[in-house]
Amino acid sequence: MINLQIPHATTIRALRARVKSWREAGETVGFVPTMGALHDGHLALVRLARAHCDRVVTSIFVNPAQFGQGEDLATYPRDGVEDASKLAKERCDLIYVPDREIMYPDHYTTMLTLEGPALGLESDFRPHFFGGVATVVAKLFNQVRPDVAVFGEKDYQQLLVIRQMVKDLDFDLDIIAGETIREADGLAMSSRNAYLNDDQRQRAGKLNEILKSFGGALHSGADLTEAQAMAMTAAQDVFDGVDYVQARCATTLQSFDAGKVTGPARVLAAVRLGDARLIDNCAVPAS
Amino acid sequence: MINLQIPHATTIRALRARVKSWREAGETVGFVPTMGALHDGHLALVRLARAHCDRVVTSIFVNPAQFGQGEDLATYPRDGVEDASKLAKERCDLIYVPDREIMYPDHYTTMLTLEGPALGLESDFRPHFFGGVATVVAKLFNQVRPDVAVFGEKDYQQLLVIRQMVKDLDFDLDIIAGETIREADGLAMSSRNAYLNDDQRQRAGKLNEILKSFGGALHSGADLTEAQAMAMTAAQDVFDGVDYVQARCATTLQSFDAGKVTGPARVLAAVRLGDARLIDNCAVPAS
Repeated sequence: MINLQIPHATTIRALRARVKSWREAGETVGFVPTMGALHDGHLALVRLARAHCDRVVTSIFVNPAQFGQGEDLATYPRDGVEDASKLAKERCDLIYVPDREIMYPDHYTTMLTLEGPALGLESDFRPHFFGGVATVVAKLFNQVRPDVAVFGEKDYQQLLVIRQMVKDLDFDLDIIAGETIREADGLAMSSRNAYLNDDQRQRAGKLNEILKSFGGALHSGADLTEAQAMAMTAAQDVFDGVDYVQARCATTLQSFDAGKVTGPARVLAAVRLGDARLIDNCAVPAS
Repeated sequence: MINLQIPHATTIRALRARVKSWREAGETVGFVPTMGALHDGHLALVRLARAHCDRVVTSIFVNPAQFGQGEDLATYPRDGVEDASKLAKERCDLIYVPDREIMYPDHYTTMLTLEGPALGLESDFRPHFFGGVATVVAKLFNQVRPDVAVFGEKDYQQLLVIRQMVKDLDFDLDIIAGETIREADGLAMSSRNAYLNDDQRQRAGKLNEILKSFGGALHSGADLTEAQAMAMTAAQDVFDGVDYVQARCATTLQSFDAGKVTGPARVLAAVRLGDARLIDNCAVPAS
């Protein structure tokens, strides 16, 4: 159920009619793709889109193509009424809420695959993920045809994958990155934080601390292998599992040659707390 | 070298500037993607695009992504001056001739994959082919942003693959099919016919005869397995090799259950004459 205080479209035809009316008035269009369960991080992206464009479309679609077997597709938080209310307050111009049959009708078969920034990190643990993300985003771009699309740095590898896909497939739009919005203890906002119980929630804030320490050590010239091992040990002490804690080139996500950070770097991590899986990342301050 | 009698663009920026000027004048844009070495079949597609749109863009790009190891990428016929002259006569509005660095710059990585109509037939012999075609066509569509794109029925499986890709990825354009243009003896026009010597050229005309007989037999209620075996034997008698001669559903390209054609059908073949590989197809007349 969607709150009718804000216009919404559930079909490609209705979406295009609305966007066309803006185009004919000479207005520019910003786009924020989401899976709903909106938090302040999403709303900051909507404000960023509004700062660049006359109109803002936010899509809400929990994309099955980016979930693997045993992941949380069925339990992913959904609250359309609350989402619509939040978007209305941000003066979002249109909520686009396609259903699964519109996005993936019978006999659907086209998938995008990427290497480059999609290699490693998340792909080592969610091999289906970036193919599913790139595919649904390409579809959404063709449906909305925005001038600008906004993605959060919270999903940093995803951001670089989308930039690569836009460049490779020559989409005629600009990708703008929104910085990560955090709770008071540094926990990056995420719809999946709703999975955490009180104890897990308290531990979750340590992830950002560990990444900041890791980045700070690299900034101070620490040996990469040693700093990474220290961050890994710190993460293993706090979390129920650690998928990765790594420093990578901030623009290509390639690994650095052993022991040495050269050029702009980013530290990235994925950890587990009970059934929840958290990811976060920080820029390494330039030395 | 491109003849300057007709405007041409070699960069995405120049292409988009030209298309934008038409859009601002309220004009519609048709698009004919080609690999050059233009013949009357291509020119019929340009005329078809012109019949549907105010402006016509023809692209010429020999797409390396759709050639496999040992195929004819290096020797594929190229004649930009002659192509430009032919397109000028058809009042094509713009020739778009991107080079390889524009289409596939360093670190290029995004590829499209499809199943459905891409399964079997050509894919059994050129497994890289439809991924390469779908990828370059998606790029060209994003570069040109046409209202209409025209593809020839000569490459019937390709036509269905492109239709599937456009539907799956929600490209906002119409695909129009141009019927196959043939020489006097029935040989489908193809840039690759230039590879044939006199003897091969004479035998090449038999391909259409064999397909017409095959389709006629199915139309008359012949047993599918028997008719297919007869067509295969006839093709093997004429050609140096036969990759396939098959009847398929005309809309999905799925095989029919053994022995029985149900609904609209298409007969398709690929054969070899020396180093050349020829493909052709015909509709099976409705019974």
